[in-house]
Amino acid sequence: MDAIGTEAGADGPRRLEMPRPEPGPGEALVRTLRVGVDGTDHEVIAGAHGGPPAGEDRLVLGHEAVGVVEEPDETGFSRGDIVVPTVRREPPSGRNDYFERGEADMAPPEAVVERGIDGAHGFMSEYFTSPGEFLVELPPALAEWGFLVEPVSISEKALELAYASRSSFDWQPETALVLGNGSLGLLTVAMLVPDYEVYCLGRRDRPDPTIELIERLGATYVDSRETPVSEFADVHGAADLVYEATGYAPHAFDSIDALAPAGVAALLGVPEPWTFEVDGGRLHKELVMGNRALVGSVNSGPRHFRAAIDTIESFPEWFPEALVTTVAPVGEFERAFEQGEGVIKTAVEFATP
Amino acid sequence: MDAIGTEAGADGPRRLEMPRPEPGPGEALVRTLRVGVDGTDHEVIAGAHGGPPAGEDRLVLGHEAVGVVEEPDETGFSRGDIVVPTVRREPPSGRNDYFERGEADMAPPEAVVERGIDGAHGFMSEYFTSPGEFLVELPPALAEWGFLVEPVSISEKALELAYASRSSFDWQPETALVLGNGSLGLLTVAMLVPDYEVYCLGRRDRPDPTIELIERLGATYVDSRETPVSEFADVHGAADLVYEATGYAPHAFDSIDALAPAGVAALLGVPEPWTFEVDGGRLHKELVMGNRALVGSVNSGPRHFRAAIDTIESFPEWFPEALVTTVAPVGEFERAFEQGEGVIKTAVEFATP
Repeated sequence: MDAIGTEAGADGPRRLEMPRPEPGPGEALVRTLRVGVDGTDHEVIAGAHGGPPAGEDRLVLGHEAVGVVEEPDETGFSRGDIVVPTVRREPPSGRNDYFERGEADMAPPEAVVERGIDGAHGFMSEYFTSPGEFLVELPPALAEWGFLVEPVSISEKALELAYASRSSFDWQPETALVLGNGSLGLLTVAMLVPDYEVYCLGRRDRPDPTIELIERLGATYVDSRETPVSEFADVHGAADLVYEATGYAPHAFDSIDALAPAGVAALLGVPEPWTFEVDGGRLHKELVMGNRALVGSVNSGPRHFRAAIDTIESFPEWFPEALVTTVAPVGEFERAFEQGEGVIKTAVEFATP
Repeated sequence: MDAIGTEAGADGPRRLEMPRPEPGPGEALVRTLRVGVDGTDHEVIAGAHGGPPAGEDRLVLGHEAVGVVEEPDETGFSRGDIVVPTVRREPPSGRNDYFERGEADMAPPEAVVERGIDGAHGFMSEYFTSPGEFLVELPPALAEWGFLVEPVSISEKALELAYASRSSFDWQPETALVLGNGSLGLLTVAMLVPDYEVYCLGRRDRPDPTIELIERLGATYVDSRETPVSEFADVHGAADLVYEATGYAPHAFDSIDALAPAGVAALLGVPEPWTFEVDGGRLHKELVMGNRALVGSVNSGPRHFRAAIDTIESFPEWFPEALVTTVAPVGEFERAFEQGEGVIKTAVEFATP
């Protein structure tokens, strides 16, 4: 069957011929509809993150998938159900407590593999198999946007951790600052605008489709070249919630300055090592004297996928249409990996329901 | 009446002659028994933190107090009740929402004054007054150790924030690292030993009474000169919980390296500005990929005082006796401000119940 992946020596994603997977006991066979592309895919392609399954030199990409159950076996699903797969799976060393608890998203990296990212083939192929516990059912009407469930679930998890960190007192947040106007940042702006006065920070000139999206959602664009994160509070007032999805390491520290007392910053970016100077004394004091918090968050689990489905259903109808700038048929998959002006969110389409 | 405080130009605490306070409506008059001394008092004396009430040049010290209700007025208390006062009070600008919600501990510094620390006279005097909402009743048997309720409440609050931050998943912590073997660190070791394998980091040579206390409690002393925080995990295994009470700014960042995946560091120290280099990229990535959290915590409220009372009741009987190395009668109050070898926790005694 057709698959899109990385291969040792190749300088970009390529079409791979892979055997159609045989579902094991308790696994469903799923026919793939669409698979989204995000920054992690580009990091994997560049060799900066993850890699093929042990002993292989190819990795099927794709961790943002939606598909149709073709053979449900004993998963509890029915043939024709629209499903979205979670990403983390048991490592070669076998099932561990994190999986028993249904919380693989909280496991350390060495206790899991990640499909399409690290140590396990992804979903960017005509078919994939999965145990039922890692599939979440999607209302059929959402099938075309089902590949957005995984990225939204990433923010659901991060916000869950952020809210939990503020749950021991009567937190009354009003203002949110989203760092990064990539697709994850924009999805998070859409999630937050019903409840917050939202600012979204980027470094692009107008006219720009992401700035248009931010403003159409009712949020305010902040150009980091004019207002860096460390000066955000002086210009716009401090944020109760900061959501960082840039991977720009100084943002983890600058966000402390952007936070209101009792505020929390959720960190999601994955920077490379980078040594720089910080006023660690002042930042430490600000964390303490303001009861502020920083929470790191990675991956997501089934309950975050279910929350993401509700969230996507609540989005304005125009929003996914405007966010998803490319849906490339598998024969033109390269288009889904192009980055550049005008590109926001892309996906590869294998089939329609 | 006799009071102990700071005075402009003085280089240490001194005896002040203050008028006996007149309770306002809804306030109780409390006769002071004992008042503890901690690092914050020494910072206030040194002029590094806080200061007198607006328009005054003297500050009565003392924020760790226990006393006996002498005139209850309409506070709901009875004459003879043993009480402990909380520290934060309404600022000159008046009552605000934080007080309405009973959560002054979560307020920004400018929305409060702190008795004995910043902008309001403390409790280190023969009598003090307080509205009933800021007094917590203590079992009479605990009267002699009642001045430990405030410091223990500081840790109750910090641990409450830390646990809340891990409440969205099934956290199963086993190992705790307490940074700092001052009195607050030692109180926290005593709080944690029933539930954790506890390590406590200091920089003292044996024989030392704090090391003896740590080991008698069943915890392990870690000499930071041999094993710095950044190497703790390599030597002892990573900690699920780090509790920082040193004010040494690099600890806020090093604690990320000491933390196990899904772990949390509670920061309580208040360092001065201090710029230094950190591998911010790596630390940011470790926070994210390990779902780790940093929570700052300052002050505490009535529910933390109540929790602290339960905690103190659960301490081994020998522990407060061993921790409190000096109880100086008010006539010899200087002894309670001496720091040095053999001194752990001190208090000034004004009266006995």
